[in-house]
Amino acid sequence: MALTGQHFIAGLWTGVPAEDFQAWDPRADAPLPTYFADGSEAEVAVAASAAADAFVAYRRLSNAQRAEFLEAIADEIEALGEALLIRAEQETALPAARLQGERGRTCGQLRAFAGWLREPLHPVLKDAALPDRQPLPRPDLRLGQVPLGPVAVFGASNFPLAFSVAGGDTASALAAGCPVIVKGHPAHPGTSELVASAIARAIARCDLPDGVFSLIQGRSPALSVALVQHPAIAAVGFTGSGAVGQALAREAGNRPQPIPFYGELGAVNPQVILPGLLARQPETLAQLQVGSMMMGQGQFCTSPGLVLLPDSDGADRYLATLTEALADQAEGVMLTPGIARAYRSGADQLASQPGVSLLARGSNGGHANGAVPLIYQVSAADAQNNPALFEEVFGPCVLVITGAQGEPLNQLVASMPGQLTCTVHGDESEFGHHADLLDALAYTAGRLIANQMPTGVEVCASQNHGGPWPASTAPQTTSVGAEAIQRFLRPLAYQNWPLSQLPENLV
Amino acid sequence: MALTGQHFIAGLWTGVPAEDFQAWDPRADAPLPTYFADGSEAEVAVAASAAADAFVAYRRLSNAQRAEFLEAIADEIEALGEALLIRAEQETALPAARLQGERGRTCGQLRAFAGWLREPLHPVLKDAALPDRQPLPRPDLRLGQVPLGPVAVFGASNFPLAFSVAGGDTASALAAGCPVIVKGHPAHPGTSELVASAIARAIARCDLPDGVFSLIQGRSPALSVALVQHPAIAAVGFTGSGAVGQALAREAGNRPQPIPFYGELGAVNPQVILPGLLARQPETLAQLQVGSMMMGQGQFCTSPGLVLLPDSDGADRYLATLTEALADQAEGVMLTPGIARAYRSGADQLASQPGVSLLARGSNGGHANGAVPLIYQVSAADAQNNPALFEEVFGPCVLVITGAQGEPLNQLVASMPGQLTCTVHGDESEFGHHADLLDALAYTAGRLIANQMPTGVEVCASQNHGGPWPASTAPQTTSVGAEAIQRFLRPLAYQNWPLSQLPENLV
Repeated sequence: MALTGQHFIAGLWTGVPAEDFQAWDPRADAPLPTYFADGSEAEVAVAASAAADAFVAYRRLSNAQRAEFLEAIADEIEALGEALLIRAEQETALPAARLQGERGRTCGQLRAFAGWLREPLHPVLKDAALPDRQPLPRPDLRLGQVPLGPVAVFGASNFPLAFSVAGGDTASALAAGCPVIVKGHPAHPGTSELVASAIARAIARCDLPDGVFSLIQGRSPALSVALVQHPAIAAVGFTGSGAVGQALAREAGNRPQPIPFYGELGAVNPQVILPGLLARQPETLAQLQVGSMMMGQGQFCTSPGLVLLPDSDGADRYLATLTEALADQAEGVMLTPGIARAYRSGADQLASQPGVSLLARGSNGGHANGAVPLIYQVSAADAQNNPALFEEVFGPCVLVITGAQGEPLNQLVASMPGQLTCTVHGDESEFGHHADLLDALAYTAGRLIANQMPTGVEVCASQNHGGPWPASTAPQTTSVGAEAIQRFLRPLAYQNWPLSQLPENLV
Repeated sequence: MALTGQHFIAGLWTGVPAEDFQAWDPRADAPLPTYFADGSEAEVAVAASAAADAFVAYRRLSNAQRAEFLEAIADEIEALGEALLIRAEQETALPAARLQGERGRTCGQLRAFAGWLREPLHPVLKDAALPDRQPLPRPDLRLGQVPLGPVAVFGASNFPLAFSVAGGDTASALAAGCPVIVKGHPAHPGTSELVASAIARAIARCDLPDGVFSLIQGRSPALSVALVQHPAIAAVGFTGSGAVGQALAREAGNRPQPIPFYGELGAVNPQVILPGLLARQPETLAQLQVGSMMMGQGQFCTSPGLVLLPDSDGADRYLATLTEALADQAEGVMLTPGIARAYRSGADQLASQPGVSLLARGSNGGHANGAVPLIYQVSAADAQNNPALFEEVFGPCVLVITGAQGEPLNQLVASMPGQLTCTVHGDESEFGHHADLLDALAYTAGRLIANQMPTGVEVCASQNHGGPWPASTAPQTTSVGAEAIQRFLRPLAYQNWPLSQLPENLV
């Protein structure tokens, strides 16, 4: 399957590959052969204008027609076969088995949105006319929803399939009735092109307007800003780093016509350990922690980067097991050289904080793009009033705060920024004695977990992937699960319309 | 019922009335006796800190307890009796009968939110655990909702009860579990104080924490900005002018921690008239237009300020009836001297646009704060590419665009900014021939109406009061109807919790 290196804009493969933009193989630490086009503002304008045109037709499709389109995309992605997985592995250093699972998840979520379109989960709100009501009659009112318009999607480097070109944001925006323009992540342009080619075939199969989907490849922040600022763009879906997400969110809010920016950013995903369970299962808890932090070399937005450990029976055994288990972990190759560098400087930054000491480390393989697993520790007393300790180090780096119980624990939780997830490990009986703690954690997290690790975000109707700012730039919304569609819809009340003129689902 | 002129902050009447801040009686064009305190940043800080404290207890109340509180507020507002209506009439020049209706609506909406708390309209999404699923088990997930935190509310001058201290934003925020801080509108501080005293009694009756509600009186933009910027404020509800709402929305978005800003702003609420109905009922349509535009002296956010009239049978009779009917309308006194001045300058601005001419006017009473009803007209050709014609003139001023049919009509609709409402007046049979027009209007409006005037926003489950920007700063939300509660909630997924620890509604 030869790559063109081009953009896919409104039905055409277009653009001249740049001389200096190749994908990088992080394991070989060498470029991959194809050269890719580097998008410009002019290409954004063409894609956005085509998306605006396509919106007029696409928004009128029935739910069933949109469901068929999503299913066609899933089918076409599967039809890419091994070529997709091979390319993704080259570009990300993620193992084949993981990518196979991620492909299953990507196609599964496209089909899940198709299912939620066919069988909506929420009732339609209707109020019948009351023509004889005094002092005034009540009109017939029915609450529909309409799509917002063309959506810009920025995928993440760490999920080259599930949070990228045909990932959750694209699936939910298309489900809602919004055309999509993806700015391809420069870390996996070949994977992006292959998935775009699958979407192109699905568009042709379903006979949809060309502008319903475009992929613009590129690297420059200016390209991202141009896409967010284009007047035809009605909303943005973003998964990635806090710094970039927050900067683009401000661009979206400061447009002449502000638009919603749905950014799912990072988090340290605190693990609070209660003394009862700790006394009974210190080794098991430590093993779970190491297993979870090593998933994808810690390159999950839900990676458990912070442990709050009480000074109580089992704490020493927990720390000892953590140390032993981490020593068995080998350095892994990170997604990109830049991420590997950022990991090292982030870990150094953490190590330099007052009171922080190294507890455990994995083995060092000396790879240019490697990341040695690291666990640091600090006392609850030293952790108070130091927000730097809550900053995510993207990769297999964890901070254990010891002495985290009672008032110091409550204060730490109160000072924590918003999180995608918070987990509490404890016996059911001791949950009842920690009502204030659980309440405080609930108001910090987008997902509150008992006795399970946060890695792995189940795609199901009741999922929430988001959380209080800065975990998400739009805490009222989720980027995973059935409610993700809602981000790209707005309410529209229909008053006094004859049945013949109402949308099908309102009749 | 003597007024204190003070703020009500976290259970205490506090603050020293300013020497130059009185309410103004627009009919007498003279100040009303009481002097009012002018809030400071320090008072914002006290109220916000108390709200943050109260949030911890208030958010744990059951839906039933919050419903009782809302009902207690409604009871206490009614218990204020005539004194409330008399004061509101003095401060706004709105007639007693209208204010009586508005009080009914205000109490009705508090009780409606109580009802929606007791019987939620949406099912709870749950996914049961699948422990044996391959390759990975599925955890038990349930999607709850939690309140965002303390909410700042800015009421409007034109609904001193229904969109003010205990108006829709306050009712929906309290229903969601959020404490509220109201910045009292300086046009009706006495009315605000009376309603705050009713809320104070409801708080005492329900034994709630003091910080759950505060009213800060004041006039300065700096006070509003300080409230929006306070770190303890988690969201803002605003009803008012586009300029102020958009400025405060940017303040909310540019905070170190951005927060949602729900601003319901103005609109011109276009009336599109189709030729079939126009030929049959030109006089009726014109009478409806004049009746609706004169409601509350045109001081409704849903006032019909724009008519799109085709050149066809009945157009002349429509215009003749409009002219005659308006001549019978007397100048009315506006809510404030400032609004009366803005009306005159806005109407002058409209009159000065190329091709605009005066079609009709009501009688001039010569009142200092009066507004003479005005209808201007312009041709569709002159209206193309002139966005100034779509700017709201708050008051009884209407622009009729003649020759609005076919392609010129479609172009005008496409160029229109977002609207709270759009109405189409036509026969059912001709709706079918205007599918593109109806579709375009749907994507311009928050409420799409057939053959009814837009004034009067029914409070019922399926209402939407909002619309594409700039009608609303958050088009995905509504400020009226059951879904208004959603603005102040966010999703929280509960994973793998024992039933004993789950919120009641998730079990």
